Amino acid sequence: MDLFGTAGIRGSVEDRVTPELALTVGRAVAAEIRDRTDDPTGRDPASPASEVVLARDGRVSGGAIAAAMESGLAAGGVDVRRAGQLPTPGLAYATRGRYGVMLTASHNPPTDNGIKCFRDGVEFSDELEAAIESRVADEPTRAPWDEWTEADRIEPLAGYLRAVRDYAGTFGADLDGLRIAVDCGNGMAAPATPRVLRELGATVVTLNGNVDGHFPGRGSKPTSETLRDLRAFIADANEDVPDPGRPTADGDAEGFAFGIGHDGDADRIVIIDDDGEVVHEDTVLAVLAEAYVRRSDADDPVVVTTPNASGRIDERVRAAGGRVDRVRLGALHEGIAAVQAAASEASGKTDVAFAAEPWKHVHVPFGGWIDGVCSAAVIARLVADEGLAALREPVTERPYRKVSVTCPDDRKEPAMTRLETVLPEAFPDADVDTDHGVRLEFPDASWTLVRPSGTEEYVRIYAESDAVDDLVADVRGVVEDVIEGT
Amino acid sequence: MDLFGTAGIRGSVEDRVTPELALTVGRAVAAEIRDRTDDPTGRDPASPASEVVLARDGRVSGGAIAAAMESGLAAGGVDVRRAGQLPTPGLAYATRGRYGVMLTASHNPPTDNGIKCFRDGVEFSDELEAAIESRVADEPTRAPWDEWTEADRIEPLAGYLRAVRDYAGTFGADLDGLRIAVDCGNGMAAPATPRVLRELGATVVTLNGNVDGHFPGRGSKPTSETLRDLRAFIADANEDVPDPGRPTADGDAEGFAFGIGHDGDADRIVIIDDDGEVVHEDTVLAVLAEAYVRRSDADDPVVVTTPNASGRIDERVRAAGGRVDRVRLGALHEGIAAVQAAASEASGKTDVAFAAEPWKHVHVPFGGWIDGVCSAAVIARLVADEGLAALREPVTERPYRKVSVTCPDDRKEPAMTRLETVLPEAFPDADVDTDHGVRLEFPDASWTLVRPSGTEEYVRIYAESDAVDDLVADVRGVVEDVIEGT
Amino acid sequence: MDLFGTAGIRGSVEDRVTPELALTVGRAVAAEIRDRTDDPTGRDPASPASEVVLARDGRVSGGAIAAAMESGLAAGGVDVRRAGQLPTPGLAYATRGRYGVMLTASHNPPTDNGIKCFRDGVEFSDELEAAIESRVADEPTRAPWDEWTEADRIEPLAGYLRAVRDYAGTFGADLDGLRIAVDCGNGMAAPATPRVLRELGATVVTLNGNVDGHFPGRGSKPTSETLRDLRAFIADANEDVPDPGRPTADGDAEGFAFGIGHDGDADRIVIIDDDGEVVHEDTVLAVLAEAYVRRSDADDPVVVTTPNASGRIDERVRAAGGRVDRVRLGALHEGIAAVQAAASEASGKTDVAFAAEPWKHVHVPFGGWIDGVCSAAVIARLVADEGLAALREPVTERPYRKVSVTCPDDRKEPAMTRLETVLPEAFPDADVDTDHGVRLEFPDASWTLVRPSGTEEYVRIYAESDAVDDLVADVRGVVEDVIEGT
Amino acid sequence: MDLFGTAGIRGSVEDRVTPELALTVGRAVAAEIRDRTDDPTGRDPASPASEVVLARDGRVSGGAIAAAMESGLAAGGVDVRRAGQLPTPGLAYATRGRYGVMLTASHNPPTDNGIKCFRDGVEFSDELEAAIESRVADEPTRAPWDEWTEADRIEPLAGYLRAVRDYAGTFGADLDGLRIAVDCGNGMAAPATPRVLRELGATVVTLNGNVDGHFPGRGSKPTSETLRDLRAFIADANEDVPDPGRPTADGDAEGFAFGIGHDGDADRIVIIDDDGEVVHEDTVLAVLAEAYVRRSDADDPVVVTTPNASGRIDERVRAAGGRVDRVRLGALHEGIAAVQAAASEASGKTDVAFAAEPWKHVHVPFGGWIDGVCSAAVIARLVADEGLAALREPVTERPYRKVSVTCPDDRKEPAMTRLETVLPEAFPDADVDTDHGVRLEFPDASWTLVRPSGTEEYVRIYAESDAVDDLVADVRGVVEDVIEGT
Repeated sequence: MDLFGTAGIRGSVEDRVTPELALTVGRAVAAEIRDRTDDPTGRDPASPASEVVLARDGRVSGGAIAAAMESGLAAGGVDVRRAGQLPTPGLAYATRGRYGVMLTASHNPPTDNGIKCFRDGVEFSDELEAAIESRVADEPTRAPWDEWTEADRIEPLAGYLRAVRDYAGTFGADLDGLRIAVDCGNGMAAPATPRVLRELGATVVTLNGNVDGHFPGRGSKPTSETLRDLRAFIADANEDVPDPGRPTADGDAEGFAFGIGHDGDADRIVIIDDDGEVVHEDTVLAVLAEAYVRRSDADDPVVVTTPNASGRIDERVRAAGGRVDRVRLGALHEGIAAVQAAASEASGKTDVAFAAEPWKHVHVPFGGWIDGVCSAAVIARLVADEGLAALREPVTERPYRKVSVTCPDDRKEPAMTRLETVLPEAFPDADVDTDHGVRLEFPDASWTLVRPSGTEEYVRIYAESDAVDDLVADVRGVVEDVIEGT
Repeated sequence: MDLFGTAGIRGSVEDRVTPELALTVGRAVAAEIRDRTDDPTGRDPASPASEVVLARDGRVSGGAIAAAMESGLAAGGVDVRRAGQLPTPGLAYATRGRYGVMLTASHNPPTDNGIKCFRDGVEFSDELEAAIESRVADEPTRAPWDEWTEADRIEPLAGYLRAVRDYAGTFGADLDGLRIAVDCGNGMAAPATPRVLRELGATVVTLNGNVDGHFPGRGSKPTSETLRDLRAFIADANEDVPDPGRPTADGDAEGFAFGIGHDGDADRIVIIDDDGEVVHEDTVLAVLAEAYVRRSDADDPVVVTTPNASGRIDERVRAAGGRVDRVRLGALHEGIAAVQAAASEASGKTDVAFAAEPWKHVHVPFGGWIDGVCSAAVIARLVADEGLAALREPVTERPYRKVSVTCPDDRKEPAMTRLETVLPEAFPDADVDTDHGVRLEFPDASWTLVRPSGTEEYVRIYAESDAVDDLVADVRGVVEDVIEGT
Repeated sequence: MDLFGTAGIRGSVEDRVTPELALTVGRAVAAEIRDRTDDPTGRDPASPASEVVLARDGRVSGGAIAAAMESGLAAGGVDVRRAGQLPTPGLAYATRGRYGVMLTASHNPPTDNGIKCFRDGVEFSDELEAAIESRVADEPTRAPWDEWTEADRIEPLAGYLRAVRDYAGTFGADLDGLRIAVDCGNGMAAPATPRVLRELGATVVTLNGNVDGHFPGRGSKPTSETLRDLRAFIADANEDVPDPGRPTADGDAEGFAFGIGHDGDADRIVIIDDDGEVVHEDTVLAVLAEAYVRRSDADDPVVVTTPNASGRIDERVRAAGGRVDRVRLGALHEGIAAVQAAASEASGKTDVAFAAEPWKHVHVPFGGWIDGVCSAAVIARLVADEGLAALREPVTERPYRKVSVTCPDDRKEPAMTRLETVLPEAFPDADVDTDHGVRLEFPDASWTLVRPSGTEEYVRIYAESDAVDDLVADVRGVVEDVIEGT
Repeated sequence: MDLFGTAGIRGSVEDRVTPELALTVGRAVAAEIRDRTDDPTGRDPASPASEVVLARDGRVSGGAIAAAMESGLAAGGVDVRRAGQLPTPGLAYATRGRYGVMLTASHNPPTDNGIKCFRDGVEFSDELEAAIESRVADEPTRAPWDEWTEADRIEPLAGYLRAVRDYAGTFGADLDGLRIAVDCGNGMAAPATPRVLRELGATVVTLNGNVDGHFPGRGSKPTSETLRDLRAFIADANEDVPDPGRPTADGDAEGFAFGIGHDGDADRIVIIDDDGEVVHEDTVLAVLAEAYVRRSDADDPVVVTTPNASGRIDERVRAAGGRVDRVRLGALHEGIAAVQAAASEASGKTDVAFAAEPWKHVHVPFGGWIDGVCSAAVIARLVADEGLAALREPVTERPYRKVSVTCPDDRKEPAMTRLETVLPEAFPDADVDTDHGVRLEFPDASWTLVRPSGTEEYVRIYAESDAVDDLVADVRGVVEDVIEGT
């Protein structure tokens, strides 16, 4: 059984992520934790306590799935702390020093649910997921009846929000009446982002701020299309307003300085500018990366990101005196750990300033999880200080393409091996990186990435350049030749 | 001490509705209930059980005030059921067969809070309020220590919402994808109205659907001004949409069929049409009144309302075969009781079809409290059936004025006595009603009401007429003459 | 699968009553309720609302099993009210007008748990249990995702205890300082019986009054052996005390008027006299039956009991002017229903005064469930009035025997058929009842019952008589002859 | 106003510790905490977070007083964590790193309640109490409305019990079926001590193990008199049992190895031996003190106690290689802090091995609060290892007297000054300590203490000696002479 995908366990509650599955996974997680816990009291700071914080997003199935998961964990013999409904980053925060399970299908449709496991603030590693998977396949051993536990109740939301607020308060400037529109998408951002922004001083108007597991207001994945109500709302409100969203000498702000859209569990964020247009996710990433590198006091500040992220990030990080390290998709936390391990051998000082995939930001000094609520707060403070336009201004947004070239599965490996030689030869002025596919970076900050699809019979070409179509055509020629010749 | 105003006890939590006051009132309410309860078990259906459901709206001070009230009630020796945050009509529903206390300052600013008491679904009568007031003044007697109680927790929201849904389902037609925008004003409508409408089949987009006691999104009182975001949102969305808010043969609805605005505790409702304009509160009242009279199977269906409510109500009620009964402001429940008492002597059949003040609707067959959530659901079903334009069409909206004429307090009474004679003489073709001021009703459904202000040195003139300025001028002349001559 | 035994579903949580089973049964119960509920709102008093109150006793596995059951019910689409830990009669009380599930293995060892289902205060009928069983076997259909529910929390214990107190208060006399020792056996009697007795005025000392699912203090089934600590405690305390447990003119009581022992979920009760000896369960039954018949105002008051219950009950019931009706073991509620149905056809007046098996009492005017807490309260009031010795005095306690005669399964039916003729012939002066085996009742109130075992290869002979060994010998002779001859 | 006594704030809930007082004190505590908190996040380990854990014992008034306290704290602007019912040491444990308020009147009658404040596991110092007192007198300033908070719920009991179990597990031997009788006195020991002992392996039978704020089973203060049921229960059970409470080769234990009595909030403990007799509180203290000094690895292990504690403690501490430090009554935590401060200047190693007043034990390596649950667990492990008789054997129990000599208030100070010179002269072979009165210690471990009463017109003489009456007579002679001569 192939239980965990790149986003944990996820699927329909009627036939995949059922209560039965949650019960089984709960018992497997409990068994694994019990085996791994050297110091069950958790007093050894290197060993998380063998207790599990259990939370869920606002889905209709959340109550039933959470009860089944609680049963599995309790019958598996670990202590359970029921935390009710939380944003995923709120659950992650609450797992520091212990374990956690988050029941969410992120931005999937309301028919679905999912299971994400955390250890000390970080998602389970591949190795831990494999261990769970094998236990589920083997029918997890039951704990003897007298080691079954009884769940407690905790309410960690307020503490998390306070921590976000305190942390973001070290960036930029006071919000001081800045007017912001937030589309919570009927998800778990609703009790989180608007409150943090308000406590930081903003005036917040929300769309879809009521939690509803049917996602009645819009699709749960925040895209230009699903956020069209928010975009129209901002664009219309800002018409003819000189400095939208800023309080004037005479009184309150009119219009909105910017907008925010979240997915169902608030790990993901989209930023809308004051014209109602989506700010490109790589640009948001570049702005945050630059800000983090500038405030870092490390000798060698690093930003960890993924191969599909734009060269504009590298430009801004370099300009700020740092460097970019790329890891494969979905492996940010492993990249962070690798850099930190290397750094601590050298100086004992953490060198990772920031880590992110497009839409998903790990605020490393705050914690090792993806946190859209924290992004909202940090970005708002930066906007209050400089304005969104000024933040974007240094970022060069070049045209971007993503193209698929047909390639049978059995030819993928030989073709990629061959492309590692052929592509650098074809583009001799490019820097080459072959860690995750073949990535070429040109002196003018253009770049292209060639990598095989993990699920379909394609090789993908990503490219970003002022002359992107020419670049893609050139690369495609090389790639097709190699595939044919394999 | 003048504790209760027309809206219960209300004021700033820093110097009026403090925790200390809540504690004292709690003990007074407990003492009064204990004295009044013949059958403490509540098995006698005529005698509510001596238990109190305690709820509050989403105000920042709600937690502290509720804890103080709980302490007062518990030390006063009545059973307390803590119900957490609820809309006021949800609390009222939960008090059937027992007592209740709702902590809300309705649409007052966030600095305030308030106390409303319920008995078997209905707000305390004047007599009960006077009894509480006198006990508070006298320092309420403490219950002996061994009669102190310990509060339980209940969660009545889901049951209330289900009851609203089932009740509203008997009106109009299925919502079936009708698109509705709801501005919850960061208040207690948020967990209620959108969910009921969605369960009835609507597609709901919310503004300010996150509960926040600072009311960051807009002023809590729903007016044309505070609802300007909602109005712009609807107007912009509906531009160039042929039948806004209705699903088409090809797919989902675009735009919104109508909009809803609530106050902080969801007893009050404002309706926005598909042009983004506020529908006049008397028109909403007339539409509901007509619908209720038409579905009544009473021989003599009555609508109870207040003197300031428009003649357009009388027109529609009459057209539907019913009659209007007016009671003084804030006394709807006493009016209902009076009509019901009379009716039950005659036939044993309830004759009150509906009761309302502008913005505040008592859905009598559902229960004896003001219920904005129920109004939202009933109106949505009526709109789904006929369309908002068709519902409004038969209602004649005449121009309306409200004018104040200076009158020293000591002259108010003699002046009013004299006007009871003089006004009918001056307008011989009008029907006269002198129960609550002097109200004249003309053959063309024009009307005017003259009554003294309860708090300021004025006599007020209300008038509604196609020639309203002429009518006001005429009445004002008579009134000024009488005041001068007194 | 043979799911339900005579005591519901019961067994080890490690391999029989597992979380998986609880989940499956939960979904089956939900499906059955949804099919049966004509009026899901429960407004029709004849149709319980489709909501389920879920409670459990204090077993270690209770948390995990309850969570799994909650998941099954919620995913099955019925509303769930989580009531936490309760005595079984407290759960039964809370199910009036709705459904309920109690998780308890009564007095089984701590390794076990069990499932009991209730409908409107009464355990599921055989027909309902069969329906659940067949659904479990068929894998119960899942409810569609959007009909899954979210459990609420309720706290019904205080209301139940108040109701018991009010009800018992109509019997006997004020407790007024009467001193009573209660051994709660670390079970769910702990938060119930001592409090009710204290509120009725007793001075209560408890043994094993802390709830602990390991049952550390004593075996959970209350017997003369497991109650030896309680018995010694009472006997020692009462040594040389003239009127033990009664306050004197000078001051507080010394010693104990009597003692009470409960099983793990407080449906069962054992009474200890002031010498520390167990009062025979049939005597307790006879005392209660007589009291109930005496206070009944029915023309024909009936006590429902089982064939294994002693003739001393019949004697006391007859002396009080009533009659006894016997039904098969475990079927008290069906017996009550049958008598009530017959009675209501005749006069509309309930004629069942009381119903009981040994140790298990249904206080019919209070409700249709077995209630040991109510028995404790009623008996205490009767003792306060008359003293335990006086209550027992009229009850004749004859010697009792239970004997097993080997009989192959295939001969049971023909043998019993034949005994229906042969036994009456052999004992011509006895009254004969062949409804549940063959029961002979003699003019001197001696009786014997012959019935086949349901689970073993025996025919059982029960007998009670001043010359019990002679009677058994005579009956055994007849029975053995018949078995051999079959 | 003289708010705090030696045991915090305590008195009748009807006229002293009322909900009104709790509300006022809550606001005062909040104001004080806000002023003192340098780092409101509590990240600085030297500065507790500005949050308050609120708990209460099982008193009838607990719900109402706790709600009032919650209201005061929340309106005072500090975060509140409601912890429900807890033993006082459980609350203390939960306050590590933050603040706490415990509502208990310890062993006072049920009419009373009280308030105890904690900071980081230790009761408020005199200075902090004085600050609260002065704020209460001045009417504490209200926090602005937008800094009011909303209480969360936490359930810290299980974590505390686990910590006690783990800690006690480092003493003595496994309990392994040792049979122990515990009289919980209907107080907060009920959910704590029996469970910890059972988890450590004991077989526990409880008396009065149901929590009931009326204390029906016995007076709440554990004395030889109030524990007479427990004492008789043990004595009777152990009659003719060779090694009571110990499992034999053949099977389970009979009788009880020892007994435990607690007060209402479980900070205090009394030990009963296997004859049913109370073990003298100073002997218990000496046994624990010796055990703690023996396991200490400090160079200079110190036991902190009070002047009224017996010389037998000094004997056992000295025998184990430690020394005793005496501080005034009720000031154990200040004594601990002083020794620790001195020690940390020298070596950085904590030198306080143990601290105690009679009945009240501070297990310093576990935490800085009085903890009767921890004492129960530690003593049980020691008894399992050596037997109670063996533990007591080395402790010499000399006769003890406490005598009062009349002395007007104005003569107390000069008399005591003079006695500091005269007494040493009169008893030249004694060691003298004049820190808290005049204490003389003789070579044979006899001792006497002379100190003025704080509340009455007496000078008190305490003495312990094999010839105690002679010693008292001698000392009294000196004291009376001095008083007369002053």
